[in-house]
Amino acid sequence: MSASRSGVTVRSIRQITVFTVGALSIQELPFHVTPVSEEEHELNNRVPSRPTPELKFDEDEGDTLSNHNSITALLSSKFRDIQKRLKQYGIESPRFRKRLVSRWESLNYDVCENVLYLKDQEKYKSKKWVTLRWLSKWLVMFFIGIGTALLAAAIHFVVEKLAHFKFDLIKHYFDDCAKNNCLYQPALMWMGINLVITVAGAALVTFLQPMAAGSGIPYIKSYLNGVKIPGLLTFRAFVAKTVGVVLSILGGLACGKEGPMAHSGSIIAAGLGRGRINFCNGKTVSFYSAFRNDHEIRDFVAGGAASGVSSAFGAPIGGTLFSLEEAASFWNQDLTWRVFFSSMVACFATNFLISAINGDPTKLTDPGLIRFNAFKFDLKFDLIEIPVFIFMAVIGGLMGALFVVMNYKLTVFRKRYLNKNWIKIIEAGLVAVVSAAVAFGLMVGINECTDKAPFDSHAVTASVYCTDKKYNGLSTLFLTTPEGCLKALLHDPFESHGAVSLVAFVLIFFVLGVWTYGLSVSSGVFIPSLAIGAAWGRLVGMGVAHLMPENPNLQLDVGKFALIGAACQLGGILRTTISLTVIIVECTDDISFGLPIMIVLMISKWVGDFITTGLYDMNVEVMGIPTLPFECPPLCDDLRASDVMSAPLATFKTKERVENIYRMLKEETFCGFPVIEDDPMAPGKGKLKGLILRSQLLVLLQKKIFCPEGQVPPRNITIKDFRDFYPVYLKVSEIELSDEEKSYVMDLKPYYNPSPYTVEQKFSLPRVFNLFRGLGLRHLIVTDEKNVPVGIVTRKDLAKFRVGSKRGLVKIEQLKIQDI
Amino acid sequence: MSASRSGVTVRSIRQITVFTVGALSIQELPFHVTPVSEEEHELNNRVPSRPTPELKFDEDEGDTLSNHNSITALLSSKFRDIQKRLKQYGIESPRFRKRLVSRWESLNYDVCENVLYLKDQEKYKSKKWVTLRWLSKWLVMFFIGIGTALLAAAIHFVVEKLAHFKFDLIKHYFDDCAKNNCLYQPALMWMGINLVITVAGAALVTFLQPMAAGSGIPYIKSYLNGVKIPGLLTFRAFVAKTVGVVLSILGGLACGKEGPMAHSGSIIAAGLGRGRINFCNGKTVSFYSAFRNDHEIRDFVAGGAASGVSSAFGAPIGGTLFSLEEAASFWNQDLTWRVFFSSMVACFATNFLISAINGDPTKLTDPGLIRFNAFKFDLKFDLIEIPVFIFMAVIGGLMGALFVVMNYKLTVFRKRYLNKNWIKIIEAGLVAVVSAAVAFGLMVGINECTDKAPFDSHAVTASVYCTDKKYNGLSTLFLTTPEGCLKALLHDPFESHGAVSLVAFVLIFFVLGVWTYGLSVSSGVFIPSLAIGAAWGRLVGMGVAHLMPENPNLQLDVGKFALIGAACQLGGILRTTISLTVIIVECTDDISFGLPIMIVLMISKWVGDFITTGLYDMNVEVMGIPTLPFECPPLCDDLRASDVMSAPLATFKTKERVENIYRMLKEETFCGFPVIEDDPMAPGKGKLKGLILRSQLLVLLQKKIFCPEGQVPPRNITIKDFRDFYPVYLKVSEIELSDEEKSYVMDLKPYYNPSPYTVEQKFSLPRVFNLFRGLGLRHLIVTDEKNVPVGIVTRKDLAKFRVGSKRGLVKIEQLKIQDI
Repeated sequence: MSASRSGVTVRSIRQITVFTVGALSIQELPFHVTPVSEEEHELNNRVPSRPTPELKFDEDEGDTLSNHNSITALLSSKFRDIQKRLKQYGIESPRFRKRLVSRWESLNYDVCENVLYLKDQEKYKSKKWVTLRWLSKWLVMFFIGIGTALLAAAIHFVVEKLAHFKFDLIKHYFDDCAKNNCLYQPALMWMGINLVITVAGAALVTFLQPMAAGSGIPYIKSYLNGVKIPGLLTFRAFVAKTVGVVLSILGGLACGKEGPMAHSGSIIAAGLGRGRINFCNGKTVSFYSAFRNDHEIRDFVAGGAASGVSSAFGAPIGGTLFSLEEAASFWNQDLTWRVFFSSMVACFATNFLISAINGDPTKLTDPGLIRFNAFKFDLKFDLIEIPVFIFMAVIGGLMGALFVVMNYKLTVFRKRYLNKNWIKIIEAGLVAVVSAAVAFGLMVGINECTDKAPFDSHAVTASVYCTDKKYNGLSTLFLTTPEGCLKALLHDPFESHGAVSLVAFVLIFFVLGVWTYGLSVSSGVFIPSLAIGAAWGRLVGMGVAHLMPENPNLQLDVGKFALIGAACQLGGILRTTISLTVIIVECTDDISFGLPIMIVLMISKWVGDFITTGLYDMNVEVMGIPTLPFECPPLCDDLRASDVMSAPLATFKTKERVENIYRMLKEETFCGFPVIEDDPMAPGKGKLKGLILRSQLLVLLQKKIFCPEGQVPPRNITIKDFRDFYPVYLKVSEIELSDEEKSYVMDLKPYYNPSPYTVEQKFSLPRVFNLFRGLGLRHLIVTDEKNVPVGIVTRKDLAKFRVGSKRGLVKIEQLKIQDI
Repeated sequence: MSASRSGVTVRSIRQITVFTVGALSIQELPFHVTPVSEEEHELNNRVPSRPTPELKFDEDEGDTLSNHNSITALLSSKFRDIQKRLKQYGIESPRFRKRLVSRWESLNYDVCENVLYLKDQEKYKSKKWVTLRWLSKWLVMFFIGIGTALLAAAIHFVVEKLAHFKFDLIKHYFDDCAKNNCLYQPALMWMGINLVITVAGAALVTFLQPMAAGSGIPYIKSYLNGVKIPGLLTFRAFVAKTVGVVLSILGGLACGKEGPMAHSGSIIAAGLGRGRINFCNGKTVSFYSAFRNDHEIRDFVAGGAASGVSSAFGAPIGGTLFSLEEAASFWNQDLTWRVFFSSMVACFATNFLISAINGDPTKLTDPGLIRFNAFKFDLKFDLIEIPVFIFMAVIGGLMGALFVVMNYKLTVFRKRYLNKNWIKIIEAGLVAVVSAAVAFGLMVGINECTDKAPFDSHAVTASVYCTDKKYNGLSTLFLTTPEGCLKALLHDPFESHGAVSLVAFVLIFFVLGVWTYGLSVSSGVFIPSLAIGAAWGRLVGMGVAHLMPENPNLQLDVGKFALIGAACQLGGILRTTISLTVIIVECTDDISFGLPIMIVLMISKWVGDFITTGLYDMNVEVMGIPTLPFECPPLCDDLRASDVMSAPLATFKTKERVENIYRMLKEETFCGFPVIEDDPMAPGKGKLKGLILRSQLLVLLQKKIFCPEGQVPPRNITIKDFRDFYPVYLKVSEIELSDEEKSYVMDLKPYYNPSPYTVEQKFSLPRVFNLFRGLGLRHLIVTDEKNVPVGIVTRKDLAKFRVGSKRGLVKIEQLKIQDI
């Protein structure tokens, strides 16, 4: 009575299918896998051990391989041949630089409709309950919005106050020492402050929760796409992210606090959805458990991410789109409204709180942390300016691609050589010191004096060597937070910044931006991207003003071109999706000027995409996260479900021995197992009855829901017991079973999902893909004509087919799956 | 050798399942349908005729019914009992007022991957072709945008010129006759012009293409949801829609040209996608056929609808969302970008063309036909104003619900009593005459004179009885197009319009709006809704100004409150989805003021939804279009696929007699038939092989792809032959077959879809629903454990379960399917 396994191991089949893209299918390869005969099955079932895989060549080859290693040998000998055939179809050979990492699991967006669930649902079989459940979802969304807004306002307040204090101090020493020839003092002080704060921030992130590094947006996007990312939505990540981003900005790094807001908002949402607080000492306080499943939590996280973006940029529509476009397969109108509601609440509350911080809570003029809306003139544009904008978009796309390439190389280098915790912290400190040193050097080196009042009346203006109420022009760019710097570039008077200092600024900030993104600190890339673009956009504006000296409105041109430059640069680096476009337009606060912004975002995206993927996609790629694209790659129509599935299967019978379950969980990495009918005529080949998840089996083992054969199995388990373990399920190694218990039998009938989605073996890949994408599946069971399961398709089996465009031509790749 | 049918007829089973919502399932009913035994099958197969259905009661009832009528009798006797049980679960009994109409078919969004398709795809098996196909889709989208913009500009130009001419003429007689006491002259002239033009417009729509009546948005939304609407996207509809809307506006009806733009844009898109022009004389010119399937055409139509909205409102983002939110199951990033591209092109081109019409093509200040952006001040708001806005939103929601209820009653009345063509035309003429008469009466009756210059310097200002360079205040509202009226209400000086005339205007326009919407003319409801709201919003603004007489900026308040009122009224009538919100915000051109607009739209929606559905949803409901909601209704977890499916099935064998095919197509209304294995052991119970569509069979019959038994079947048909018939497929009555041909055999193997989506009988309704919604299915085959088809689920089987909320509680209904 053992769980059945047949055929070769999973890994080997996957290696075969690695090379079967496009019109090639496994049938065309010169060997095939034959199922193990029934006699052998009998044998296997009596002596439970891994069966010997058997492979037969086609008759004309007439050779037989007996084990796994030989397949690999065979493959390498056949490799050139396969490559050649792939090339006939214009498909490039697999590039092993890109891979998927097997440790990323998928979310279970599909509801397991087992007996327990249906019993639980009985409670809600009234209109009152349905209405109540509906209302409580809206209520949770409301508090997600409020929580995100509170956080945004708090971060804003702390950063502004402390940063102002820091830069005031430096300015004081600057101005003093310029007269007394002790400029080494402010330099050392600046570098020292940066070093200490940044090292603290880096240590916090590195030791508390490394998932809090970076902007978090690639992770959140992957999560919404359906990938489970351990540690992403925990309290530790929240602390590391929020405190970390304050420290990063105070530490003088070229980063913003807007990206991390999306991550923080998501954590707030997940926490509120789960209704439970996990303290560091392992204690938990639980409030409610109704929403503890991947489906509901993910809906809330969509709201949280939207709220975060909304309160960061004052962009409720953009925020809503941001979180919905990744989770598009699951978009529905009701969810959309809830997400929109939560981001509107966040925007409104942030507006109220920041207005209150600024002195007048009823004015409501600050819907987000960063806004471009302070133009003192109407943004208008003329048809003849469009070619200039397009030219700028091309520049932005090219520079963005360069940014991505450089950051990619750096990331790979870091992953390979700088993977020790202490090295990460030292690198962060180094960047902080260099940032300060370079800023100091520029300010002293390019001693550009101006007497034009800066845009921000609270700006810290160091005079350094300047006299006559003049001040150093670069001080409004460097003695401030990156947001302040961006605002200065957009709105400072025409004459404030000279061409030389702007060129230097662009170069420095570009390099620092590349270097900073990917450090083990909590940091966003929005603001530095915008600042780089605004600086060179300002340069273009000055050039245009120079060409047309009779232009009455120089100020207008400079601000306008700086804004367009910022959009171009952002588009080139991040490759705006439709949501990013909306975010920028909402930030600009002027829709008629939205049209040129949309045009440049689109063109810079095209130019950038011609060369590389976007920064976030590059991140996801480097981490090997198996996100699913929106459509099946082209040229894959001939692939069948049987070509991509993992086979043979590990299956359970409806009544299964505890020993077999325990062993299978230990030996296999699958997260779902088909349950089959116990057919004495064909052991291990029974009809499909359902699908049971690893997490469910672990809970059942832990709660000891089994009994000696023939007795009535215990039923003292409810759906709440499963929810209590959400989302951190048990590990099989944590479960202790006595030898007697191992001989018991577990009745799986009440627990498995009796109607899993299935397809027939000859289903084509595009249709399998649509199923996965459209329904957010994790497992899809492949059956033969008699409804007997023969394999299982998982997200990774599909995510390994990737399509991209390179230099205008479509490119298809197949990624390798790696264990790390 | 006949096609197999077994059990009772479809209609009877459907009537049983009509009453099985919620926790009730068919198994609980006191009788069950037994499959016909194999012997009877043999008999049926020998004498091909409709088999006698057989029904058995449970043992305890011990009775046997022999035909269909008895089931109905049984049902009516059991009806009270079932109703009582339904009420236990808080479910209301089915309301037969609401129903689905069986003539609406579904789109085939799913690709039929038969041998022909795969052969056709072979051509494209290279990167060059993939890239080319990708490029050509972008190109088509580009021309969709350009075409829509050209149309928008043309309509704008014609309407503005002719309307100005008309109203100038009337004004002339007005001013002359006021002195000479011949006011009957302008009155008669006004009514006469309106009558003639409107009757022409109504006749055009009624006789050329009745689908062009109304705004077209409900139809387009249904189409994007997946319902095939015959005649909607034809050249006739285009002419009727575009010429019709010009005539409607010139005819003085209370309607706008913005709604119809979405429909016109969709028709342009469908035409460009099909690459073919059908002339009225039956001749066609064909350019390309690669995109002739429902999948591609629907993607293009999404772009067309977006372009239409975009060029009407200057709202590229709103337009994109508009077309994507209905088709949400099929959202993907690439399509989103294409749709966005096309609406941006439309917006830009419209901007250019209208700027050119206005004299300076490079100014680019008119991105759409209607804009609210001409405020001469910055729209700012304060926290204390929010409660006033919320109060207005409640008013807007209530008035909107009243509008919907009144229009609903009127629509039902029209459907019942005014369904003759000539009555429709007379009614339209009557409305036009009344509109003119009422406007005339008000202008003369409320003789309000003002000397403030109107906002629009080109406005027609009749003095009537006014002297001293004063003019009649109402003339800027009535002697203009509805758009001009809206602009006047938003922007005219504070003192221009008195309270009395505004109250009268609201009442009159409300009644006229209700009466006009649903006439057999091409007309949109956006502008009248906005105008009603702007008028009472202006009243509120005047009230607020009155309460605070020291307010320095009266003008601001009036305009601001008028805008909020317009948004509230629109939200109350149409129940804005997220896209409508974005459209209004884009129209307003001021994002910081977007926040209060979003709030009032949301609240007016909530208030309205508490009472009725929105206007468009009401339209869809009255027409009985089976649109699928976004989620399965609650309380349906216990329903299984076997409860909702249509059974028994009409199936074909892989090699089927032409006679059987011909007869089945004539007798059955199904659009898809499962193809089964020819199993001699169990005739009609073979394993599922695939799914073939009615449209495919008709083409095969027409092209005579069959041969005597035993011979090699002809294969002289390609996928292009099928595409040539798209989208107007043949009717079975058009096909002529000789008796000899009827005895031939058709081999279906190359033509059926070999891997249709299937589910097992015990699949729950929510999961079946997700499959349908997520994949845009038309047919879902239900199989038993042995992979033998036992039933089929169609869109209508699912669309009949409707959920709504009524007075705060969730309400579930089951609609009846009616033949009309």
